[in-house]
Amino acid sequence: MTLKQLKQQVCEANLDLEHHGLVILTWGNVSGVDRERGLMVIKPSGISREALTPAKMVSVRLSNGEPSGSGQWRPSSDTPTHLALYRAFPGIGGVAHTHSRAATAFAQARRSIPCLGTTHADHFHGTIPLTRMLTRKEVTDDYEAETGAVIVSAFRHRDPVACPAVLVAGHGPFTWGRDAAMAVQNSVALEAVAAMAVETMALNPAVHLLPAALCEKHYFRKHGPGAYYGQRE
Amino acid sequence: MTLKQLKQQVCEANLDLEHHGLVILTWGNVSGVDRERGLMVIKPSGISREALTPAKMVSVRLSNGEPSGSGQWRPSSDTPTHLALYRAFPGIGGVAHTHSRAATAFAQARRSIPCLGTTHADHFHGTIPLTRMLTRKEVTDDYEAETGAVIVSAFRHRDPVACPAVLVAGHGPFTWGRDAAMAVQNSVALEAVAAMAVETMALNPAVHLLPAALCEKHYFRKHGPGAYYGQRE
Amino acid sequence: MTLKQLKQQVCEANLDLEHHGLVILTWGNVSGVDRERGLMVIKPSGISREALTPAKMVSVRLSNGEPSGSGQWRPSSDTPTHLALYRAFPGIGGVAHTHSRAATAFAQARRSIPCLGTTHADHFHGTIPLTRMLTRKEVTDDYEAETGAVIVSAFRHRDPVACPAVLVAGHGPFTWGRDAAMAVQNSVALEAVAAMAVETMALNPAVHLLPAALCEKHYFRKHGPGAYYGQRE
Amino acid sequence: MTLKQLKQQVCEANLDLEHHGLVILTWGNVSGVDRERGLMVIKPSGISREALTPAKMVSVRLSNGEPSGSGQWRPSSDTPTHLALYRAFPGIGGVAHTHSRAATAFAQARRSIPCLGTTHADHFHGTIPLTRMLTRKEVTDDYEAETGAVIVSAFRHRDPVACPAVLVAGHGPFTWGRDAAMAVQNSVALEAVAAMAVETMALNPAVHLLPAALCEKHYFRKHGPGAYYGQRE
Repeated sequence: MTLKQLKQQVCEANLDLEHHGLVILTWGNVSGVDRERGLMVIKPSGISREALTPAKMVSVRLSNGEPSGSGQWRPSSDTPTHLALYRAFPGIGGVAHTHSRAATAFAQARRSIPCLGTTHADHFHGTIPLTRMLTRKEVTDDYEAETGAVIVSAFRHRDPVACPAVLVAGHGPFTWGRDAAMAVQNSVALEAVAAMAVETMALNPAVHLLPAALCEKHYFRKHGPGAYYGQRE
Repeated sequence: MTLKQLKQQVCEANLDLEHHGLVILTWGNVSGVDRERGLMVIKPSGISREALTPAKMVSVRLSNGEPSGSGQWRPSSDTPTHLALYRAFPGIGGVAHTHSRAATAFAQARRSIPCLGTTHADHFHGTIPLTRMLTRKEVTDDYEAETGAVIVSAFRHRDPVACPAVLVAGHGPFTWGRDAAMAVQNSVALEAVAAMAVETMALNPAVHLLPAALCEKHYFRKHGPGAYYGQRE
Repeated sequence: MTLKQLKQQVCEANLDLEHHGLVILTWGNVSGVDRERGLMVIKPSGISREALTPAKMVSVRLSNGEPSGSGQWRPSSDTPTHLALYRAFPGIGGVAHTHSRAATAFAQARRSIPCLGTTHADHFHGTIPLTRMLTRKEVTDDYEAETGAVIVSAFRHRDPVACPAVLVAGHGPFTWGRDAAMAVQNSVALEAVAAMAVETMALNPAVHLLPAALCEKHYFRKHGPGAYYGQRE
Repeated sequence: MTLKQLKQQVCEANLDLEHHGLVILTWGNVSGVDRERGLMVIKPSGISREALTPAKMVSVRLSNGEPSGSGQWRPSSDTPTHLALYRAFPGIGGVAHTHSRAATAFAQARRSIPCLGTTHADHFHGTIPLTRMLTRKEVTDDYEAETGAVIVSAFRHRDPVACPAVLVAGHGPFTWGRDAAMAVQNSVALEAVAAMAVETMALNPAVHLLPAALCEKHYFRKHGPGAYYGQRE
């Protein structure tokens, strides 16, 4: 894929965030990575969605975050968070960050999202983790990179490809996937799962976890070598 | 009706799920049956809705679930559940499965939906039942067929035509009707009824059942020989 | 106004119910009255909204509910309820009935809607009343007319023009106004007020009534001889 | 900017309230100010949004609220509230008033909105304050001007530019900004923040405030001399 095609994909993914109702105003951002060239492409900071074009997408070096080429636009202020994820999670090709309502409510309520049903299990293997809160020093010193670090540390004993979503405490969700489009799709699924969880907990505060056998069944029905959901490729 | 017309109907019904806001991504599926030919037509597995066409609908034998004709598409992974319903409920011609928010929340909260008002009574005779949770063995052995079996067993003492909806515990709703379009319409009604029930229970946790006389009145105003809702046919 | 114009108005008002998201499927109905001719015009029963045309609107005599003219369509099954309201409330020209979510939730929860804020006070003078539940005999004998009767009795000591809305217990809202369009507008306002009340009570179960002086101020700012909202006519 | 341009801006901002789903019917109003000419331009009272045109916007003198020019339309009944804000807050150029659902629910529940997450901190520095309830005398004597006065008094020890929003107890939100468009944008952000706060509190009634360091970080990342969000100008 050329850099131009990647910018096209990332631009479309950023516009899709709004079409799916996951962001308003200039909130949220999506990136994609070209690991061969060592480049990440991301939305420019604070630009309204009507003004987004592929040419305005910003490419930075995966190694150090420095701009590549002679772009005139500043990248999203969350760029260091995205970079930290690409460096720590070699299996991913796209990252999305939204302020979608229900997922953000869980992040603000400081609760992870347990697996309450098959909708969750179809997309996410196990609980959607909640990061720890950043320390005052982390916030002051290198905020966006430290945000990436607490996400990575929440996956120390988890496979980020099997659970492509996290809630940053007091902030909101980040999701990822094999490319920018899949990262957005996982944001869509996360918000739906979170919204169902809000209503489920209202109906029954004594949370019933989905039995483990059913969690495994639904996840592996769609993912991995034994999957039988979808078409043969 | 020709098989081609049935595929057209089933395709439209699958697209309608999204228009009514009951599904996102590739979630959900609708089928229709041709009992004379012994065939069921259902959505292909994991295909995005933009790509759905009548020609891609998959037909399988009602008797054994084997593909009929030389279709190249795999049927929905929930096919055995649909087949179980058509075999057990001779009065139905269409089945719909969604992950609509409020109905799924009831299924996840492990609660049936009691009849709280006339909106419910207009469409569903009595409580919308909740299935029991599948056992680990049922999940492992023949998951989708066993899902059909627990639905059927929830209707052992109920008329599935009078209450065309069920909540599968930890999973979500299935609905049915005389054809695919009516199955979808019942999914629409179920979600509205479930969403109202969520708000009703928030306003008053001491659930007030609709008095039996009023339940009967509203249901039989619209259904059966004494019905006087709608136009004479 | 000619009968044809009235049918046009009533047809548009019925379609507006759906545009405002207050009804789905064939739910709900709106009527308008021509008191000089002694006729009420109402939606036909059980017709899908796409098929509604002014010519299909049904006119019945206000005195006895009998069809006027040679219309081939059956009127809404709620016709006797509408007739009871026009007979008891001489100041109204239109009636609307919906199953809008939050207002129906209050009706199902058996709670009236107290005046919690100025949005309510702008449109409705005082609490939106809840009717008593119908007796078994009333349901069996003459259900729709008795529904009208319990509404009328809920306004024994209230002015129906100042509070153009009611919640029928276990059923849902009826609203009215000087014509069919205003009846629909009051259904829109009622649903917004009810939805705000649901969230208000979730945030603070200890309901704070709006002080009486502010209720009066807002209501009479928009209604009656001292009104100064809107343009001079 | 000419007066004609200001009327154009204010008209668009009023129409935007509806596009963003913050108002229905004739609710809400937006104004803009021209401090050099000493004029405020505001929506006419009680006009439906379809009928709004720039020429119908009403201009009044900032000093005394008297109409300027020979306009035939009455200004919004909330005009004295807007005037009070422009006089007390010299840094603002636009004011918006809505009845958006979640923000109004907080106002009706008599709760301020604490800073629960970074979405809030990005837009509003600190708690969104709640005014005290007006006294009976204030309501009777000069209601709309006194509404302005209680808003101003809620900011006695706060910077209204850093927190461009308030909840008037029992009524609803007012927001402001450097012009009419920014005032509307702040209404959009306020409603999103309020809706998230409703869900957050449902998930965890023990409110967790965002740590002060993170509140400061997010606010000053976007505002003031050290801001690094957005593009260099």
